[in-house]
Amino acid sequence: MSVNLLQGAQETGSMSIKLLQGFKEADTFEKYALVAVIIVALLGLVYAAFLARQILREPEGTDRMKHIAKAIRTGGNAYLKRQFRTIVLLIFALAVFIFFTGYVGGEVIKSEYGNPKWLIGLGRAGGFLMGALFSALVGYIGMNMAMQGNSRVAEASRTSFTKALKIAYRSGTITGMLTDGLGLFGGTIIFLVFFRDSPLVLIGFGFGATLLALFMRVGGGIYTKSADVGADLVGKVEKGIPEDDPRNAAVIADQVGDNVGDCAGMAADIFESYEVTIVSALILGVLLYDVTHELHWIIFPLLVRAAGVLSSIISTYSVRALREGENAMKAIHRGYLFAASISITSFALFAHFYCDDLRFFYATAVGVALAVSIQFITDYYTSTERAPVKEVAKSTKTGSATTILSGLGIGYESTVMGILAIAVSIGLSAAIWRHGGAGTDQILYIFYGVALCGIGQLTLTGNNIAMDSFGPIVDNANGIGEMSKLEPQARQTLADLDAVGNTTKAVTKGIAIASAVLAAVALFAAFYEDFGLEAINLIQWKVFVCFLIGGAIPFMFSALTIRAVGRGAYFIVNEVRYQFTHVKGVWEGTVDPDYGKVVSICTAAAQRELITPALLAIVSPIVIGFLFGLEALAGFLAGVILVGQLLAVFMANAGGAWDNAKKTIEDGLYGGKGSEAHKASVVGDTVGDPLKDTAGPALNPLIKVINLVAVLAAPMMLVEVSGVWKQRDLSAGIYAVIVLGILAIIASIWFSKRAEAFGREETEEAGEAREA
Amino acid sequence: MSVNLLQGAQETGSMSIKLLQGFKEADTFEKYALVAVIIVALLGLVYAAFLARQILREPEGTDRMKHIAKAIRTGGNAYLKRQFRTIVLLIFALAVFIFFTGYVGGEVIKSEYGNPKWLIGLGRAGGFLMGALFSALVGYIGMNMAMQGNSRVAEASRTSFTKALKIAYRSGTITGMLTDGLGLFGGTIIFLVFFRDSPLVLIGFGFGATLLALFMRVGGGIYTKSADVGADLVGKVEKGIPEDDPRNAAVIADQVGDNVGDCAGMAADIFESYEVTIVSALILGVLLYDVTHELHWIIFPLLVRAAGVLSSIISTYSVRALREGENAMKAIHRGYLFAASISITSFALFAHFYCDDLRFFYATAVGVALAVSIQFITDYYTSTERAPVKEVAKSTKTGSATTILSGLGIGYESTVMGILAIAVSIGLSAAIWRHGGAGTDQILYIFYGVALCGIGQLTLTGNNIAMDSFGPIVDNANGIGEMSKLEPQARQTLADLDAVGNTTKAVTKGIAIASAVLAAVALFAAFYEDFGLEAINLIQWKVFVCFLIGGAIPFMFSALTIRAVGRGAYFIVNEVRYQFTHVKGVWEGTVDPDYGKVVSICTAAAQRELITPALLAIVSPIVIGFLFGLEALAGFLAGVILVGQLLAVFMANAGGAWDNAKKTIEDGLYGGKGSEAHKASVVGDTVGDPLKDTAGPALNPLIKVINLVAVLAAPMMLVEVSGVWKQRDLSAGIYAVIVLGILAIIASIWFSKRAEAFGREETEEAGEAREA
Repeated sequence: MSVNLLQGAQETGSMSIKLLQGFKEADTFEKYALVAVIIVALLGLVYAAFLARQILREPEGTDRMKHIAKAIRTGGNAYLKRQFRTIVLLIFALAVFIFFTGYVGGEVIKSEYGNPKWLIGLGRAGGFLMGALFSALVGYIGMNMAMQGNSRVAEASRTSFTKALKIAYRSGTITGMLTDGLGLFGGTIIFLVFFRDSPLVLIGFGFGATLLALFMRVGGGIYTKSADVGADLVGKVEKGIPEDDPRNAAVIADQVGDNVGDCAGMAADIFESYEVTIVSALILGVLLYDVTHELHWIIFPLLVRAAGVLSSIISTYSVRALREGENAMKAIHRGYLFAASISITSFALFAHFYCDDLRFFYATAVGVALAVSIQFITDYYTSTERAPVKEVAKSTKTGSATTILSGLGIGYESTVMGILAIAVSIGLSAAIWRHGGAGTDQILYIFYGVALCGIGQLTLTGNNIAMDSFGPIVDNANGIGEMSKLEPQARQTLADLDAVGNTTKAVTKGIAIASAVLAAVALFAAFYEDFGLEAINLIQWKVFVCFLIGGAIPFMFSALTIRAVGRGAYFIVNEVRYQFTHVKGVWEGTVDPDYGKVVSICTAAAQRELITPALLAIVSPIVIGFLFGLEALAGFLAGVILVGQLLAVFMANAGGAWDNAKKTIEDGLYGGKGSEAHKASVVGDTVGDPLKDTAGPALNPLIKVINLVAVLAAPMMLVEVSGVWKQRDLSAGIYAVIVLGILAIIASIWFSKRAEAFGREETEEAGEAREA
Repeated sequence: MSVNLLQGAQETGSMSIKLLQGFKEADTFEKYALVAVIIVALLGLVYAAFLARQILREPEGTDRMKHIAKAIRTGGNAYLKRQFRTIVLLIFALAVFIFFTGYVGGEVIKSEYGNPKWLIGLGRAGGFLMGALFSALVGYIGMNMAMQGNSRVAEASRTSFTKALKIAYRSGTITGMLTDGLGLFGGTIIFLVFFRDSPLVLIGFGFGATLLALFMRVGGGIYTKSADVGADLVGKVEKGIPEDDPRNAAVIADQVGDNVGDCAGMAADIFESYEVTIVSALILGVLLYDVTHELHWIIFPLLVRAAGVLSSIISTYSVRALREGENAMKAIHRGYLFAASISITSFALFAHFYCDDLRFFYATAVGVALAVSIQFITDYYTSTERAPVKEVAKSTKTGSATTILSGLGIGYESTVMGILAIAVSIGLSAAIWRHGGAGTDQILYIFYGVALCGIGQLTLTGNNIAMDSFGPIVDNANGIGEMSKLEPQARQTLADLDAVGNTTKAVTKGIAIASAVLAAVALFAAFYEDFGLEAINLIQWKVFVCFLIGGAIPFMFSALTIRAVGRGAYFIVNEVRYQFTHVKGVWEGTVDPDYGKVVSICTAAAQRELITPALLAIVSPIVIGFLFGLEALAGFLAGVILVGQLLAVFMANAGGAWDNAKKTIEDGLYGGKGSEAHKASVVGDTVGDPLKDTAGPALNPLIKVINLVAVLAAPMMLVEVSGVWKQRDLSAGIYAVIVLGILAIIASIWFSKRAEAFGREETEEAGEAREA
């Protein structure tokens, strides 16, 4: 087993610190280009700050509106603070572990320049902290800007559709530009400082971002859907009162949930996708630099990203309704197409004039094509205009059971289309790079192509996030409008904007999942190349067994998150019921319910459920690697990628189809609101909620956390025996690690299952006695 | 690429026909053993005939009971006849194709004895037809015996619990012994006639059995669940009348469905599992015989099977309640344990005295242990006594949506446990055979061990099928009891037996799926060995891409079957509604509804939906193999196996949990029948039905059909170039095959989606007008 990261390691023993080497090897154009990339990244951040100032100057509306908006802000920030407090210790503990993967593992992964082990370890741990911090910042600031935007959108809706749209879209754009700016800045700076050593550091950076995103996705997802499902069950289904009815104690928690889940969680997740695609491209790019000694393998992806950021700045600022009442989706789409044309043109120019190799262009163009086809597939399976949603809507006529069945069938079918689109992209990448080189090198070229495809796909992240954040902002604005009893015309404007928000959200989700798989595939290849595996041979029993276990992980993870939502919703239903029956005046609407109580139940429930899935993601690859070796670990990764993608898209699209089937019925089909068909459609939507907003999207960061942990921890699984790297034997210490790891997972599952109740619940006897 | 099947091929060009070689090479003990195996197989068939005579002598009950039983028999046989007519042409067309895989492919797969190509092709095609015929026979006779048993069980229930139990169990045992007898006879005869050439023929035999099982599972599954879901929706949910209420026009179709799905479909499926485990063991056994020149690699599995058949004969005949009213499950379990102890003892004796190698014993014992752990897992996740079903039951209190969510969570978790059990079994097999030999041979030993594990797991097939068939028989008896308005005491006896039937069914299903995966894994290894692949290397892009596509197949297949049930149920609901409202006297109960109309709707719907999934299974491996080559095809197979197992167990156990949660509520929990919790639990059960009885179980034969098609068609994908076998280039002819294959699948999907309606449906306007 030869270890590529070791290639060219200087055995001179020189311990001089060599940084910023990359800049020395760059030609003049490349030097300017790198500086330009940094400037563009900073420009993105400045643009975000500029938009924030603009938003904050807008009026917040009536006192009632301010009051509600403040309650949402308080809840959202209380949640994030508690979340950060829960994980901060783990993050620092992991930083130490990561330092050691660089230091102890430094026997295997040596610096190219003879930089000392402590420097590599420090860089890696520092990169990890920076990644986690950036991810947290994007989530935190993004959520807060959304929570500032919501009441302002509601206020603007009272006077002007155009203005409401602009405020909503720009509030979302802030998050988008933060993602763009911080993502590009982080990756480029690390490359500039560490150059040929940068893969060792970038992997830490990517891991920090992804891990934090995992926490934000899982915690936020459980929070938002516990609140949403709980509020719907007790309000819409049980009591027959409208969504956002102020008598329902869970409505504020539901609003908070939109922010912590759909804003903070989603922003951190897309930031992480944006990050990991560039990390995987740079890792493979550096390996190609070793082969070809050409720097464009590394600089091209950075330039592409910079072009994307610039396109996003220009195009997002141009988004506005051309006339009062124009379909908002049209305005947003116009901006997107504008951005796409700027970036694609620039890819072609860079590929031709700088790389002198159009394959770079083709590869990124495949990524854009993939984004378009994912958008098409998502649209086909979840749009109210197409056959699948119509089929689900029709099945509501025969009750909830057929509604669920048709949604499952459609979800299954859609995930087939999704994975075929990815398979075709990988195939095209292979077709483009098939002459890349011979033997192992060909693999390197092909998977570099896959990484470029991921880069291309996420080019317009700024626009995507702007579109996605738009969803929860207008959803919140709509809720505030309902709770503040705004004028009918304003309510109509907000409802129209809300409907657009649902479409934009579904599309972003599909793109995020596809990019997760491309990034994971590129990391999978990086793992293979870095540790010089000869093959990942499925006929070896260890590989096959671990491949089976890998496939089980996404199911286990989804089981944990879905059941967590179920438990959370159960507590909320009980609390709201308690307030309806035991607190005088709540049901009559004369007294405000205790919103804060439900907010704190959600917060506590989400925290408790957070640790198990994260532990599963971090511990499982380590246990597998130590126990069965690196080749088997690669088999494990393949199983995770395959099943993760299939489950994630199934859950996202089934959920989307149910959601929109409900909408078509609420718009009057089959009897409209209040009909039996409507009740069935609400059941479908409620089942779909945790699938599409908790379990499904949390699989993105899961897939990548597992791949990154594998790359990080692999060096510790190897030991040098007379010049050859081989699998470390199973010593007592390693057995201890394995046993402890497995015990930690089991203990954590046991802990999260413990039926500790939050909130107040009538005892069954008391309830029955009262009813009798 | 060396081709193992070619090894030792005699280039003498002698065209003499050499058959029955195996008998010549056997020692005296082995000769006696082979004769004994054949005698035991025939004994199993004689025992089945003996039981059938016994059952047919029992009284059929009142005229009303006879009338209903006859209606069910007519429906069931009409269905099977139409089913066989639909597929008989395809079977013969495939027989020709299979002859050619032996004949044209004969360049690659050469006879060991220089037997002429036409003989190999003929043997293979003949084996295929025999497999299909046996599978059909098991389904047909098994179903008919069940349909003879049902009214006799109902009649016996009026006088004696003990007698009712005995008749039900023995009617089921007939199917079990047919499976055992025909399965063992077929495999052994082929081995005796073709010996070293038998792998070439056995693969045809296995394919025939599996393909027919796929049709029976898919067709029967769609039939039974369309009828069941349709009957429940319109009866229990919409009209609030009990299950099996004679006014419901769908009740006879529902009863027929139990027979065509749970009896005929299940019997054919288990027959096929029984068959393919022995086929895979013999194929790998023959390869090991080539290496070691010891015949026990082949004869041991046959002996193990014979011991199992004998144990089943003795133990099933001993099953009876020890005293009136004893728990039926106890009596059945006693028989099972008795059989298990006889067989395990005999495994040890054979391994020690005949093979002189206890590894044979350990490997089969691992199979038995796997069967026990699957039984434990299934029981844990689906039994009314354990936490998961209690959790689902509790979630019914908050409505259908939480019921569905908790069932999904539990199904996800249970499939993780299922695949871990299989992973551990493969790991143990590897531990047992790790010193088997070096290099490639070690792989051969390990996967031979996996095949033995599958053999061990299915040892007691006779008992398992007896237990499984017991389910639909008592279910039917219960229905006949309800429709004939039998005495309350008889109804109670039948209800008790019915509850036991539900448990026995769930367990068999789990074992069938696990055995499917073990058999598929062994075939996967046989594919690798037969065509001398050097590796199945996931880092090769073709392998990775096909692996992704393979993972999509079970989802696509399940989408097709679930949606087929949804469509079928929709037609039935409309027909029953029509009869309620437009046929005078039906709703009042003064006139029998037109049961036959619903039966024929189910039959037609199932036929139309049958072809697409089968085509997907047959065509996809051929297209993949021609387009991307054998190594990529192996990657495709791995994806199918992984995702197939995960989805199948998820759907089976989620369905089982919902079903039993409903039962606990019907037994009085949370308000019992008629409560809101009960309504929610009915939704759960209705969603679970097609998952656990159509889509899930149909994945067993799917996984194996795909693996077998790969092995069958692979030789046609190779071409000899100066003595080396390599992938055939993409010629115009091959492109035509690929394009035609893909077009056939697309056309077939389009055809099955065409919303051609069966039955009568009120136009929406007419219905609304009437309601208004």
